[in-house]
Amino acid sequence: MSTMMKEVVLAARPQGAPKLSDFRIEEKPIPDLPAGGIVVRVLWQSLDPYMRGRMDESKSYAAAVPVGGKMEAGCVAEIIASDNPKFTVGDIVESRFGWCTHAAASGQGVRKIDPSLAPIQTAIGILGMPGITAYVGLLDHGRPKKGETIVVGAATGAVGSLVGQLGKIYGCRVVGVAGGAEKCAFAVEELGLDACIDHHAQADGKAMTDALAAQCPDGVDVYFENVAGKTLDGVMPLMNVWGRIPVCGMISQYNLGGMGLGGAEGPDRLPRLWRTILTQRLSVRGFIITDHYDRFPAFLEEVSGYIRDGRVKYRESITEGIENAPQAFLDMLKGGNFGKTLIKTATE
Amino acid sequence: MSTMMKEVVLAARPQGAPKLSDFRIEEKPIPDLPAGGIVVRVLWQSLDPYMRGRMDESKSYAAAVPVGGKMEAGCVAEIIASDNPKFTVGDIVESRFGWCTHAAASGQGVRKIDPSLAPIQTAIGILGMPGITAYVGLLDHGRPKKGETIVVGAATGAVGSLVGQLGKIYGCRVVGVAGGAEKCAFAVEELGLDACIDHHAQADGKAMTDALAAQCPDGVDVYFENVAGKTLDGVMPLMNVWGRIPVCGMISQYNLGGMGLGGAEGPDRLPRLWRTILTQRLSVRGFIITDHYDRFPAFLEEVSGYIRDGRVKYRESITEGIENAPQAFLDMLKGGNFGKTLIKTATE
Repeated sequence: MSTMMKEVVLAARPQGAPKLSDFRIEEKPIPDLPAGGIVVRVLWQSLDPYMRGRMDESKSYAAAVPVGGKMEAGCVAEIIASDNPKFTVGDIVESRFGWCTHAAASGQGVRKIDPSLAPIQTAIGILGMPGITAYVGLLDHGRPKKGETIVVGAATGAVGSLVGQLGKIYGCRVVGVAGGAEKCAFAVEELGLDACIDHHAQADGKAMTDALAAQCPDGVDVYFENVAGKTLDGVMPLMNVWGRIPVCGMISQYNLGGMGLGGAEGPDRLPRLWRTILTQRLSVRGFIITDHYDRFPAFLEEVSGYIRDGRVKYRESITEGIENAPQAFLDMLKGGNFGKTLIKTATE
Repeated sequence: MSTMMKEVVLAARPQGAPKLSDFRIEEKPIPDLPAGGIVVRVLWQSLDPYMRGRMDESKSYAAAVPVGGKMEAGCVAEIIASDNPKFTVGDIVESRFGWCTHAAASGQGVRKIDPSLAPIQTAIGILGMPGITAYVGLLDHGRPKKGETIVVGAATGAVGSLVGQLGKIYGCRVVGVAGGAEKCAFAVEELGLDACIDHHAQADGKAMTDALAAQCPDGVDVYFENVAGKTLDGVMPLMNVWGRIPVCGMISQYNLGGMGLGGAEGPDRLPRLWRTILTQRLSVRGFIITDHYDRFPAFLEEVSGYIRDGRVKYRESITEGIENAPQAFLDMLKGGNFGKTLIKTATE
C-alpha cells in the first residue's frame, strides 16, 4: 500500500467561471493516526454546485476555502486506522473529508453508513445532503398538496431529480426544467415527470414562460428554486396566489461575477419580482440544509423505502480518479453532468 | 338638505405619477333607497397608497377601476335611509363606499362602528384596514421576538406607525425610516421608536445601509416592507439569519411605469436580493390584508386597548371636502402627508 496521498487545493480565487489552473493537485504522506481519531481512505467524493461559492471570498453562509487550502466535499470513505472506540477498520463512513484520497479526523461529524441500505455512494447523493435538501425544501417549505403543480429546475440533477419524483409520489403535477433533449427525455421517461422544458431551447425568460405555461394549465403552486436566471424569470408570471418558493441555490448565477453579486446590467428585475411576491401573496424562503439535519432520520426512512420499492430512481455521473475532479467540477457547473456527480476516488 | 351629491371618477389612466386631470368630479342626484338596502352620507374617506394600483390596468390582486368609474376607498358614513333591518337611520358604519359624498348600497360588507370605542374615523385608520395590515403583517408574518430588531419604512404612516409602536410594546428595538426631519422626530419622540432614518438625507441604498447599520448594532430580524426602493436596498445587507420580511406594499415604486413593472434601467438588483434570501435563510412573504380579516376581532380588541391606555398613538392628516381629495392623494404618494390621510367629506 502506498504511503502517499493526493489532495486538491484551491490555487487561486476564480474570476467568473473557474478554470483548471484555479486548482492544484498536491501529493503528500498519508497522515498518522491522531490520538483518539481515525484515518480514512476515500472511496467516493461528491461534487456539488455549492462548492463554487466556497471558492469566493464574498460573504456567504460558510467560510471561504483559503487559497492553498483543501477544497471541501462530502465523501464516503473506509476506516483504515482507528484509535476511536466508535469506529473499526473496514467501517464505511460519510463525512466532509474534502477533495482527497486520504484524511485523518477526530471522528466528530463522521456518520457510519449501512451498506445494506443502498449502494454506499448514495450517502453523498440521493440519501445524503442533496437528497435531504430536496426532501426538506419540498416538504417543509414547499408544502405541496395533492393536485398542485410543481416546477423544478435542474430536474435531472442530484437535488432536482428527487424533488420531481417526490412531487409525483405526493400526487402533484411536476414540470421540470433541464438542459438538453436527452435530460428532458430522462426526466419524463425515467423519473416520471409530467413534462420537462429544455432551457437551451428557450431564448429568454419570456420564451420560458410560454413553454412552462403550456405545461402548467393551472399555474404553478411550488417553484423549487435551485437555478435562478431564465427559469426564475420564466416561472414568476405563472405563480398562483399562495405559491411557495423554497430557495436552495442559484446555479446559473454562480459564475457571474462573484455569485451574481456584480450587479449585472439592467433591466432591473427586482421590482417585478417584488410586486409578484406581493400581489400573489408568495412565500419565499431561503434555506441551508445543514440547519435541518434533525430531519435526517425521517428523510432516510422515507426515501430509502422509495428507492427499495423502485418508486425513486437516481442516476450518477461518475468520474474516476481525484486528479480528474477539477475538470468534472467545471463540467458540472456548465451542466455537462447528468444526475449526481461523483468522483470515484479509490480506483485501485 | 341638498338632493345632489358628488363623486370622484377616474378620468384617465395615469402615465407614471398621476396628475389632477386623471380625476374628474361629477355631480349627480343622491340615489334612491334600494329595496332592502341603505343610503349613506359619507363622513370620512380614507386615502391609501394601494389606490394608485387600482388606477392601472396591469394585473394585480384586485380589478382596476374602469375609466369613468368611481375611485375606490374605505369610508365611515352615516345611514340616512334604510330598508335593511340591520341598519337604522343615524347608525355609523364603515364600508368601501368610494370617493363620494353619498352612496346607496345593499348593506353587505357594511360594518357598524361603535363610536364609544374611539373616534369614528379610526375605523378606516388605526382600527381599520391600515391597522390590521400592521398587526397581521408584524405578528403573523414578522413574528417578532423580544430583543429582536425591526426596521419599518413609512414609519409615521398609517401602517408603519402602528408597526413601530407594536414592535416597542413587544420588547423589540425598532428603527423607522421616514421622509424628513419632522417625521423622524415624531417617530422617536411621540411614537417611541429607538431611532428613525430620514431617507431624504440618504443618497442611495449604500448610504441607507450605513445609516441603518449605525442604529442596528445587532442586525435586522424583521423588515416590514411597505416602501421598497432605497429602504429595501439599504436594509438587505443587514438582515440577520432567519430574518422575516412581510411585504404589504412598495409605495416608492407605484409611480414608476406601472407600479415598477417597466423594467427600470440596471443594474439588475435581483441576483443580490435572491442570494441574500438564500444565504441568510430569509422568509419573504407577500400578503393582502383582505385575506386575513378573520383576525379582525383579535386585532380590534388588542389595539383598541392600547389606544385607550395611551400606549399607541396615531396622527391624522385631514383634508376637508371631497373636491380636494385628488390633490391630497397626489401629495400622499409623494410623502406630503403626515400620519393617516383622511378626507373629511361631510363639512357642513
